[in-house]
Amino acid sequence: MTSSHVPAAAPAEPIGVAVIGAGYWGPNLVRNFQSSSAFRLRWLCDLDVERAKRVLGGYSTVQTTADLDEVLADDQVRAVAIATPAATHLPVSLAALRAGKHVLVEKPLAASQAEGRQLVDEADRRGLTLMCDHTYCYTPAVLRIREFLHAGELGDVHFFDSVRINLGLVQRDIDVLWDLAPHDLSILDFVLPPTVRPVAVAAHGADGIGAGRACVAYLTLQLSTGAIAHIHVNWLSPVKVRTTIVGGSKRTLVWDDLNPSQRLSVFDRGVDVATPDEIGDELRRDMMISYRSGDMVAPALTEREALRTMVEEYARAIHTGTPALTDGRAGLRVLGVLEAASRSLANGGTMVQLAEA
Amino acid sequence: MTSSHVPAAAPAEPIGVAVIGAGYWGPNLVRNFQSSSAFRLRWLCDLDVERAKRVLGGYSTVQTTADLDEVLADDQVRAVAIATPAATHLPVSLAALRAGKHVLVEKPLAASQAEGRQLVDEADRRGLTLMCDHTYCYTPAVLRIREFLHAGELGDVHFFDSVRINLGLVQRDIDVLWDLAPHDLSILDFVLPPTVRPVAVAAHGADGIGAGRACVAYLTLQLSTGAIAHIHVNWLSPVKVRTTIVGGSKRTLVWDDLNPSQRLSVFDRGVDVATPDEIGDELRRDMMISYRSGDMVAPALTEREALRTMVEEYARAIHTGTPALTDGRAGLRVLGVLEAASRSLANGGTMVQLAEA
Amino acid sequence: MTSSHVPAAAPAEPIGVAVIGAGYWGPNLVRNFQSSSAFRLRWLCDLDVERAKRVLGGYSTVQTTADLDEVLADDQVRAVAIATPAATHLPVSLAALRAGKHVLVEKPLAASQAEGRQLVDEADRRGLTLMCDHTYCYTPAVLRIREFLHAGELGDVHFFDSVRINLGLVQRDIDVLWDLAPHDLSILDFVLPPTVRPVAVAAHGADGIGAGRACVAYLTLQLSTGAIAHIHVNWLSPVKVRTTIVGGSKRTLVWDDLNPSQRLSVFDRGVDVATPDEIGDELRRDMMISYRSGDMVAPALTEREALRTMVEEYARAIHTGTPALTDGRAGLRVLGVLEAASRSLANGGTMVQLAEA
Amino acid sequence: MTSSHVPAAAPAEPIGVAVIGAGYWGPNLVRNFQSSSAFRLRWLCDLDVERAKRVLGGYSTVQTTADLDEVLADDQVRAVAIATPAATHLPVSLAALRAGKHVLVEKPLAASQAEGRQLVDEADRRGLTLMCDHTYCYTPAVLRIREFLHAGELGDVHFFDSVRINLGLVQRDIDVLWDLAPHDLSILDFVLPPTVRPVAVAAHGADGIGAGRACVAYLTLQLSTGAIAHIHVNWLSPVKVRTTIVGGSKRTLVWDDLNPSQRLSVFDRGVDVATPDEIGDELRRDMMISYRSGDMVAPALTEREALRTMVEEYARAIHTGTPALTDGRAGLRVLGVLEAASRSLANGGTMVQLAEA
Repeated sequence: MTSSHVPAAAPAEPIGVAVIGAGYWGPNLVRNFQSSSAFRLRWLCDLDVERAKRVLGGYSTVQTTADLDEVLADDQVRAVAIATPAATHLPVSLAALRAGKHVLVEKPLAASQAEGRQLVDEADRRGLTLMCDHTYCYTPAVLRIREFLHAGELGDVHFFDSVRINLGLVQRDIDVLWDLAPHDLSILDFVLPPTVRPVAVAAHGADGIGAGRACVAYLTLQLSTGAIAHIHVNWLSPVKVRTTIVGGSKRTLVWDDLNPSQRLSVFDRGVDVATPDEIGDELRRDMMISYRSGDMVAPALTEREALRTMVEEYARAIHTGTPALTDGRAGLRVLGVLEAASRSLANGGTMVQLAEA
Repeated sequence: MTSSHVPAAAPAEPIGVAVIGAGYWGPNLVRNFQSSSAFRLRWLCDLDVERAKRVLGGYSTVQTTADLDEVLADDQVRAVAIATPAATHLPVSLAALRAGKHVLVEKPLAASQAEGRQLVDEADRRGLTLMCDHTYCYTPAVLRIREFLHAGELGDVHFFDSVRINLGLVQRDIDVLWDLAPHDLSILDFVLPPTVRPVAVAAHGADGIGAGRACVAYLTLQLSTGAIAHIHVNWLSPVKVRTTIVGGSKRTLVWDDLNPSQRLSVFDRGVDVATPDEIGDELRRDMMISYRSGDMVAPALTEREALRTMVEEYARAIHTGTPALTDGRAGLRVLGVLEAASRSLANGGTMVQLAEA
Repeated sequence: MTSSHVPAAAPAEPIGVAVIGAGYWGPNLVRNFQSSSAFRLRWLCDLDVERAKRVLGGYSTVQTTADLDEVLADDQVRAVAIATPAATHLPVSLAALRAGKHVLVEKPLAASQAEGRQLVDEADRRGLTLMCDHTYCYTPAVLRIREFLHAGELGDVHFFDSVRINLGLVQRDIDVLWDLAPHDLSILDFVLPPTVRPVAVAAHGADGIGAGRACVAYLTLQLSTGAIAHIHVNWLSPVKVRTTIVGGSKRTLVWDDLNPSQRLSVFDRGVDVATPDEIGDELRRDMMISYRSGDMVAPALTEREALRTMVEEYARAIHTGTPALTDGRAGLRVLGVLEAASRSLANGGTMVQLAEA
Repeated sequence: MTSSHVPAAAPAEPIGVAVIGAGYWGPNLVRNFQSSSAFRLRWLCDLDVERAKRVLGGYSTVQTTADLDEVLADDQVRAVAIATPAATHLPVSLAALRAGKHVLVEKPLAASQAEGRQLVDEADRRGLTLMCDHTYCYTPAVLRIREFLHAGELGDVHFFDSVRINLGLVQRDIDVLWDLAPHDLSILDFVLPPTVRPVAVAAHGADGIGAGRACVAYLTLQLSTGAIAHIHVNWLSPVKVRTTIVGGSKRTLVWDDLNPSQRLSVFDRGVDVATPDEIGDELRRDMMISYRSGDMVAPALTEREALRTMVEEYARAIHTGTPALTDGRAGLRVLGVLEAASRSLANGGTMVQLAEA
């Protein structure tokens, strides 16, 4: 990958694609597949076919159906994109894979890590692409953060703090953790250097309004280096905040997704601790702390819709047969943390170790 | 207390006062006692008498000394204000109380809850005022928040979320929890209605930079109503954030202390859940969630230095013999949470129950 | 018009419509006509028919053509929307009106006031709707500002200050005044109470970069009440600002279009001058100035695309035969100010009187 | 001058100084002279000696008097700082100069350019320092802007746009132009390279509230290079804005004085126009416009009180006998623009040429 976005797939015959699910997210997929020359959208499938028609509008040549089998039977459909409720990801994705289709699944990959693993195994067995639509990973800001961290430009990561709060739809089937934290967890998974991994997670939450599930939650992750990651997700905040701070030994980066004129700020400011030599005592160490007060740089970012880049990465993965940047395994890792966090939440916030990936 | 600030003490003979400690905070106390007609500043006392002279500057008639006993022997000194390191609060305050002086102590009240209790008991025994300088409680914003919450204008409190991060001085003797969280804990103690109290606390932290103590910490408090409070304190952030959100069943309040033109925002937006009747099932409850999207009001606040109001409250407490708004017991409650949080931090984040106050 | 948006047109046979011009703005009109049930989009017409096809994308049933006559000959086309360069507005609009079509024109209405008057007269003669797409007038914020001002909620207007600056495309054919100021002038025309009208205008500008036309310009308008309006438009600013302040005798309103969470702020703060009685002298008057420091209210606004509301207003005007909120006459008034401003700019900033509308 | 602040004066006998005027600004001068080792504050002089005493507070050794002659007769007073109303600057300053004292005068230097010239001439004749307290010029931000511009780092200046609006005290004796614009004009004078000078000015204003003088004003300045400067000053705005944009051919700088965490932002973004060769026609020129979209850098600035630096510069000028950075001549240039602007305002906004300095 070169600077700040995924390269376009080489020109080729457009890939026939079908979108499954015309609810909240489906229309975005429809729009982006339609505007990508790498794909040819053939179907929009929804149990409520009238809803699918409404999504396409009155001027479209794309076909609609309520019958998944009809879609899967279409030989010109080589790939599907699934935007149905999480509980249905397993059966729909499995059916598609078994019909020989490449699969892109809305986050979370499946309703559980066990289900997710079935999908990964099935795709592996068949040599098909399984990709998880971790949309935020394809924003110009997150792609750039990944570059910074993978290139070591922040130094060692000390902390990762993410806040994602807003007045949000209280979901019927899932709590705020499963609704919002997948975004932050997939970003964390995406930007951390491969050598730094979450090893344990604790979660606290509250259901202030009597909704029957947590509407506010805080996750604390221990990273393999001793660093800390923390995520605040909240459905009840009338102010919208989407800010992530990644503190490093050399620089610290702030991503404010609600400030389009300055989404990323990289601070050359911080606290330095000189390595104490072998005879350094407590007093010496205190003396060796110093402060840097340098400039801040806000790198220029191209404004580009994340889904457009995601769709191109799906095409690239299909064409090359190599894993997508956010492949099924990335989806599995996110599910692993979510399940552990749910266990912690149920147990009053105890720290839960994560299984080896 | 009437609207949004503490009433001025009735005119009376100024109270002779001495400030003990000419370090970071002492100069602020000096300045505010000097500008209050309720006090007459007689001494600035510091082991380093040259420092005390520098603080007063070259034009002052206030006396300096390195000898606490000299101050306490001065009959015209009826009150002291102690701004020395936390470890010395106990001996200095005890000496002052035993000399019959009223005592104002910098936060935290003492180095431990046990020490703090000695001070409270001593002051009680002698009928002297013991006050803790929880400065933030005397800002116009916090006084107003207290009014809102005590009057029930937010409805039931659902969550309290406070972020206090900045590039901060890594302290030699205490971690970030003991350095910064007293601010948030004293505010929480001050603004919550008396019927809502913290019952347990968990703390997670990290020492990214090898400073030998936590530089980043997250506190989660369970409140007696099932609501949640959360505090993020951090010495390593190059961006400064001081934002508190108090979410309630009727309204939600945001305090952004770094936005002088709009410190308080009260949102009439939120999520409502109608009380399900006795035959309400799960499905019904989902149906009964609704969203309010009302106006936001930013109440006009007077700009007034918090320390000025605090100093007036000290005078009021001395004159009336009634407890200060942030009396020794408030300081004790904050120490109780801090000690429990430290235990949790040492034990990997387990939830620690708080003793009854 | 009721609260804050234009009411939907009554259900009726959709109006056949054609969009002329597939350049910068055309695609937005295409999208909004397609999603409106009041219209049926039949044609997208552009001299470059390949561009028209690209705009529609590969899945559309809408017809394309490079031939305006073909569109005008279509009996099912009752209305057109013209988004071609300003210099062509006269011939294209006249042709459409003469073919009996209702006409919506991109701002500015025409290249000159004289041309604009031809269009207004032609539409009047034929009893057809002539509407100017002053898009900003249909934003929820501007509709609300209009309500505030028309209802007198700000009191007398003292000043109107608008800043619209950004790194903008230096246009080949027009200067920054004609490119950006039509937005502010149309808003001013739309929100001011009918009794308050611009009577004179002065303009200053500069062409820092040698572009051959003003890239920075400042307009000052005298209003009929003695109040002042001022507009700053600028193509060279790397920071984007879109802020309008309307100062009134009772309240002052700030519209920050780049702050989606708080676009409108209404301040109950200001300076009051009591009316001096007949014996009031200069000194007395000074005494009678006082300051209000009240709350600020940010009214809840629905997020709704302005073009969607504009398109509905076009349908309403056609169905009812009554003038659109931004009819041809509004377009004429804006052209009158623009022409006077250009004369002022050419004459070094002299104040130019506006002709009676 | 080296990086971003005026160097401290060499250690020497402190200069005896008196502050004349204990009104709005005097207390700030008192505080800063007291904390400077270069000065010894001997007097605070005010016609209302009780006010002077209140300013000093109850703990000060500084003398007060209502008698200017008493101050000027004190041989140990070598310098005065005058913070009385503008109308009295001439007599008070002349008296001080004639008594052989160095003079620092609050802005504006005097009530008219003619009066100001008397002061400059008198100081020249006597070889005394005459300095104007253009406080903003000594902020770290403005000192840095001056460095940027003098070093040519922005390239040619295209525009200078300054907004200084707030709910302000409506002054009894002067309009908003004379109250607030001296700040912007002194900054403009200070930061522009010496080769770029204002040559003409136009001013528009309004007195919305019937205060008897302009409460809102806009100044447009033509610069000698053809560039434009514009200043908006306003007493009636409930929102406070203090933002200056300096647009250059290479970079553009934004100074937001109300954003302490990012006062300066330097954008490497802009519009480039390649120099057309001799046969370049209009069309070619259009083709040669291009856009840069580079990073933004927010330089680290030390937080330092401007008055402290100003006071040090006063000491430096006295010690060295060289002109202060903001000497009497700078004050004269600002007065020249103010007078021309007042003439323009009185004549409906005509462009008024500035006399050669």
